[in-house]
Parts: sequence; C-alpha cells; structure tokens
Amino acid sequence: MKPINVGLLGFGTVGTGTAKVMIENGALIESRVGVPLVLKKIADLDTTTDRGVAIGPGVLTADAGGILNDPEIDIVIELIGGYEPARTFVLQAISNKKNVVTANKALLARHGNEIFAAAAKEGVEIAFEASVGGGIPLIHSIKEGLVANHVKTLLGILNGTANYILTRMADEGTSFEKALKEAQEKGYAEADPTFDVEGIDTAHKLAILIALSFGMPIELDAVHTEGISEITPFDMEFSRRFGYRIKLLAIAKDTADGVEARVHPTMIPAASMLANVKGSFNALRINGDMVGDILLYGRGAGMMPTGSAIVSDLVDVARNILHDAVGRVPAIGCQPEAVCDRRVKSVDELQTQYYFRFTAVDSPGVLSKIAGVLGAHGISVESVQQKGRVAKGNVPIVMITHEAREADVRKALTEIDNLPIVHGKTMLIRIEGEGD
Amino acid sequence: MKPINVGLLGFGTVGTGTAKVMIENGALIESRVGVPLVLKKIADLDTTTDRGVAIGPGVLTADAGGILNDPEIDIVIELIGGYEPARTFVLQAISNKKNVVTANKALLARHGNEIFAAAAKEGVEIAFEASVGGGIPLIHSIKEGLVANHVKTLLGILNGTANYILTRMADEGTSFEKALKEAQEKGYAEADPTFDVEGIDTAHKLAILIALSFGMPIELDAVHTEGISEITPFDMEFSRRFGYRIKLLAIAKDTADGVEARVHPTMIPAASMLANVKGSFNALRINGDMVGDILLYGRGAGMMPTGSAIVSDLVDVARNILHDAVGRVPAIGCQPEAVCDRRVKSVDELQTQYYFRFTAVDSPGVLSKIAGVLGAHGISVESVQQKGRVAKGNVPIVMITHEAREADVRKALTEIDNLPIVHGKTMLIRIEGEGD
Repeated sequence: MKPINVGLLGFGTVGTGTAKVMIENGALIESRVGVPLVLKKIADLDTTTDRGVAIGPGVLTADAGGILNDPEIDIVIELIGGYEPARTFVLQAISNKKNVVTANKALLARHGNEIFAAAAKEGVEIAFEASVGGGIPLIHSIKEGLVANHVKTLLGILNGTANYILTRMADEGTSFEKALKEAQEKGYAEADPTFDVEGIDTAHKLAILIALSFGMPIELDAVHTEGISEITPFDMEFSRRFGYRIKLLAIAKDTADGVEARVHPTMIPAASMLANVKGSFNALRINGDMVGDILLYGRGAGMMPTGSAIVSDLVDVARNILHDAVGRVPAIGCQPEAVCDRRVKSVDELQTQYYFRFTAVDSPGVLSKIAGVLGAHGISVESVQQKGRVAKGNVPIVMITHEAREADVRKALTEIDNLPIVHGKTMLIRIEGEGD
Repeated sequence: MKPINVGLLGFGTVGTGTAKVMIENGALIESRVGVPLVLKKIADLDTTTDRGVAIGPGVLTADAGGILNDPEIDIVIELIGGYEPARTFVLQAISNKKNVVTANKALLARHGNEIFAAAAKEGVEIAFEASVGGGIPLIHSIKEGLVANHVKTLLGILNGTANYILTRMADEGTSFEKALKEAQEKGYAEADPTFDVEGIDTAHKLAILIALSFGMPIELDAVHTEGISEITPFDMEFSRRFGYRIKLLAIAKDTADGVEARVHPTMIPAASMLANVKGSFNALRINGDMVGDILLYGRGAGMMPTGSAIVSDLVDVARNILHDAVGRVPAIGCQPEAVCDRRVKSVDELQTQYYFRFTAVDSPGVLSKIAGVLGAHGISVESVQQKGRVAKGNVPIVMITHEAREADVRKALTEIDNLPIVHGKTMLIRIEGEGD
C-alpha cells in the first residue's frame, strides 16, 4: 500500500519533536498503521539551524506553499502557532482537500468554528489532540472514550507554567515574582509570560474542551478569565492552614440554566488528586453522568510529549485515509447538525465558597464592620483568621465564606474596599470544594 | 441511514448498566454517531427479574442462539463472564460475521489469542475497553492515544476490591480479614473473594495490557501473581513509617532482556499519585518513550462506569460499520504480522528493593544472624526497625534492603526461615521506588 505523505508547517520546538517521533519510532508506527508515515516536506523560515533530526536533503524549505499545493501530501501539520499566517495556511490546506493536524489552541479557540466548518464542507479531517494537555490523550478520551456520557463537570490544570509557579510558591513559600523568574530560567516560562500566568492559555484550552464536552460552538469570549499574578505567599500559607491548595483551574459545568466557563486561581482540598498535581504536570478531571469521575494526568507540554500527541492524530487520520473513512468522528465529537448553542452563564451568577484577604487597619471593630457589610449582602462567614503580622500599620484578615452569589460578593467587596479602615483591594479566591 | 442493531448476552449488573446507558443516553449517542444504536435483543437465563430498565416487550429472551444467528444484529455484546459458554458464544458470533464487544477479562486473558485470530480471519471487530479499568478509557489510550510510543512501564491499580481493602487497612489500621468483611458487606467484594484478593483478576487485566503495550501475544501464565491476604496492620504501619503505602500493583516493564510481568503487593512512595488512589478507584500509570508519564484514574468497576465503556466500544464499532472501515484498528493495536513473541522474565531475575518482616525470638544476636545470612547472599540492608511489641516471645524485625536480586532473596529467606531463632514465614513486600 501507498505510504501516507505528511507536510509539516513550523519547525520549532514542537515541530522538531514531531519529526523526531516520526523518524525515531517510524518502524513502530508502521507496524501499527500498516504503511509508513513519510515526512515529505517541512516548511520554516529558518532553513539553516540544525535541529538534531535526521531529515533527508531537500525536505526542509522556506516555502509553505510547496506543502499546501503538493498534490501528494495527504496530511498537513500546522505548528506555526498564533493566528496568522496559521489561520490562512490551515484554511488553504483544507480548501486543497488536505487533512490537518494542529497543536494551535489559540487559533482554534479564536477561529475553530470557522475551521471546523471549512473541514466539514471539504470532507477532510481536522485533528487537534496536541492543542490541550500536550501528550495526555484528553481530546480522544472526551470524544471517544466518554462518548456515551453527558459531561457534567471539567476541572483542569492545563498550564504547566502556572502550575510550576504555584507549586514552587506552595512548597517553598516564595513570591510569585521569584517563582516566575525561576520558571523563566528553567525554560518553563517565556520572556513574556502573560498568556500563561494570566490564564489566557488555559482559557483557550477550556474553550476547546467545552465545545467537545457539551456539543456547542467554541465561545472563547464567554470564558471568565483571571490569572495568578496577585497570589501572595500569605494566601498560600492560609490556604494550607484551611486544608486547601491553590491551583489555576479551568472549570466548566453543565447546569440546568446554562454552562459555567471560568479560569481562575482556585482553592481545592489538599487531599484531592488535582491538588497533588505538581510542577509542570497537567491534569483534567472529568465527571460524566455514566462514568462518574475520571482523571487524566501527564506532561501538558514539551517537545516529545506534544510530538507524541501530534503523531497519534497523524495515525488516526492515516487510518481513516487508508479505510476511506475520513470524517468518521466529527471534529467536535457530535454530528454538525447536533451542535447547539448553549447559554454560557455570567460569572455574576456563580454560587460558590470564597476566600477573602482584607488589608485593614489594626484597630478594634474592623472585623465587625467588614462582617456587617458581608451580612448585609447575604454572605455568611464560615471561618476567620486574623493572626497575620502587621505591615505598615495594616493587618491582613482572611475569611472563608459559606456558599454565596458572586454578584453579591462583588457588591460587598466594592463597599468594603471603600471603607476608610480598609487599605488596598481585597483578594478573592474561589473555592471548589467537591472532592475526588 | 439504517440503525445499528445490538444483541446483548448476559443481563446481570453490567448488562443492566449497559442497557441503561444505551436507553437513557440514546439521543446523545445518536447525535454523536449519526444513527441510533438499537438494543434489539437481550439473552439471559433469568427472563423474569425486573432490572429497572425500560426495554420493550419481546426484547428479553432465554435464547442466546436467537442473537447469535439473527442476521440483522451487527454487534454482539458478551457480558456473561467466565470461560464457558462465553467463549463458545463469542467464537460463534465471530464466525457468523458479527462484531463483538466484551468486558470479559478472564476470557480474554485465557483465550484472547484464539479470539483475536478468529476475529481477524472473519474480518470483524473485537472490542474490550470495559475489560480493564471499567469506565477509564485505558485501552483506547494505549492503542490510539499513545500509538506513537514504545511503552516502557505500566504500573496499575486494577482491582477496586483489593484497593478498597488496602485503603481501609492503611487508614483505619484494621486487619485484612475485617476490611474484607466490610468490603463484602458494602458489595465491593464477592462471597468468594479469591480472584480479587489473590491478584488473579489483576493478572488477567495485566496480561491484556501487556499484549497491547508491547505488541505480543497474551501470556497469562507468565504473569507472576501474589495477593494481599498476608498483609498485616503491622506491615501497613511500618510502610507508613518508611514513607510508603502498600498497593496491589500490576507491573510490566520492557527491559533489554525481556518483559517483566508481575502482580503483587508493592510499597510505593506515599507522595506519588498512585499511592493516593484510594478506595475502590483504579489507576494506571504508563511510561512511554516519547510521552513520558501518563496517569489515568477513575472507577474501575460498577454498573454504570462499565456500561459507559461498553457503549464507547459500541460507538467505535458502529462508526467503523457506517464507514465500511471494520478492522480499522487491529485488536491488539499493531498489525497481526507485527505481533512478536517476547521473552517474559522469571521473577527470579527481578532486581528491586525489598521490605522484610521477620518473626524472631526476642534475644540478643538475632539481628546479627539474620543480617549475616543476607550478607552472604549479597543482599545489603538500607534500614532496620525492631521496635515492635513482643507477641508470644517473638519480636518482629522489619528491614528495607538496597536493590537485590530476587533469586538471592529467595535463597536467603529459605535459609533464614530455617534458623531456630526465626518463627514462621518471613513476609516479603517488593518496593517500587520510581516517583511520578
């Protein structure tokens, strides 16, 4: 049988990892697929750097068009990243009837609906296992393993950089700034870490998972997104005392009146499996109506794990090509006509428990004033701790509330932050109490 | 398009769960597959008990032949369990060109090679996601998600009953007997718990996973198998002091000179993800050469989680039928001609660390005698604790060794157990030190 020809756009870290997996494990992959997967062409503007991969002469070119228009190429891998020219190249590959594999979560979160529609129209595959969770087969598990389930809840640690920083802060008591610097020195964080630490990358991934899990279009802008840069060692210490750990969580819930979609620092029980996901590892806990709780854990990034996921998609698509079964599993898991719009709830509608850190003057009556405002907004307090040290005449007061409504919480905090006895903005961390 | 017709053999707990998933989530499943999956017939000797599932009149019959010979049935689900008549029915379904879905690990571990060969010959699918890990998509993840990897190591908690018992023993300090009784009362353990507590069920599952992971035939008899019934609260307490937890682990390793395949109580670092898998949950840690460590966790048994896995297989097979792509993924993941015999190593060849509990008379010089025998066999001791209480004039001595060879350990223990100062058989627990 004819080999499957693959063209790769983007020969950076993940591109290099993908090429290594294809070449080093080529015989293994052939034993599984039945035919070889051949890396016919690689396009990258940098055609001179030695990536340490044994590609043949003439494979590497600066001309993406040579891949997009090569009639012998069956599958195009897009690993350029970002919006353009990735979007244009992906759409061009699709309109040239090529199947596409991509790891580009930013692209899919922003333009996925357009790309999925184009792929369905042209009758080609669009596969994106590597876009979420690196080497962990999250997307296959949701689309195929849990196909018989209504997904009810997703709780995910989907950004290794943020999780590395939070782990260092929890274990070593270091500040966010110091942990970030260390992450940058170790190569876990980029020079501009905004996407990772402000939750944007996690939101991209969550938007994709929500579409797959709930059978709806991708709605990135509906994901409420907060980052971890305001977390202090003090918050870490108090969350530990209360029996929690702080993680940057991607949270989605299917509720009777809409879908919750949010990314923010979250306090979760210290004994839970998710709380024990450390360093740069990722994990996703999925609750399905039939299967109950599932947790998938592994390396969410890195050259070889991501390459492993890209090649698993290549094999999947290659098997469909060989069996003339392209389109066997729809891009977001359900048939296009079954995709339905779901209302995404505003964060104001959220009902959950909260951790507050107030910075108040060190004088009697302060607690009573704060508690009074909370009470007036129907927010009841589960526990209070006030034993922190005084800094510049201020004392931190931390509280855990019972379940409250976010709209009420916001109103109460605005009022409290305007009290003369309160200095600076109050820190709010949401609590996700469900065990696993 | 025509619906896919399904026949179910065996209407017990898992059969009932499967029917519930198909009926309660029927619309969801149709939205994903594109056509309905219809449960056309169910065969069970008990045709009168109300299972609380809304099946139509005439669906339930005592006649398995009516399913096996129904030309309209596309997929047969075998949930009878055990060897016969399950084997005969499965082979008959295959020879009648029906695709088969089964949860029967005992059957596959013993007769899987025969069944896989028959399915390949007749050009039908044999799917068995539910046979290992209940609702966790372990088999799909190995066969498809990690398809680009040489699997190097499997470490699994694959029996919920045994894990429930060990969790109770660890958390409450109860004896094996008491924890077993409690598991039986709660419905986690059967009246005859031998398969679960003696590691046999775990060995069945490991034998299947090894075939998939290493591309070799199933070799159940080569899996070294020990159970948990000899573990005492004393062992639990000491493992905790040494920083470990005891789990019944399924272990497979791909080494230069063969495959390790063993099931036995194992001490693993208390901080590892696997050590924190509690109660009746299951988990599998997989190390792949490209992806690194992956961990999959969830409910390894139960009516609905297992039903979820069965239906995921139905959907997979249905999609292949609809796209005329039956045989798209070979039963054990690689092409039949690529399956190769691998040498499975004897446990005597094992090199690992050990925990020993000796029962010796309470007199000076005992430790020196025991250590002397160990030293003579090249076994060096990492730490010793002797502070247990005296019972009937005997005192327990516990030790952790450095890495040693199992053949030497066995010789040394035989010698030690024959010393007049040692009473009773020495307890041995292997240690798996690799973190995760």
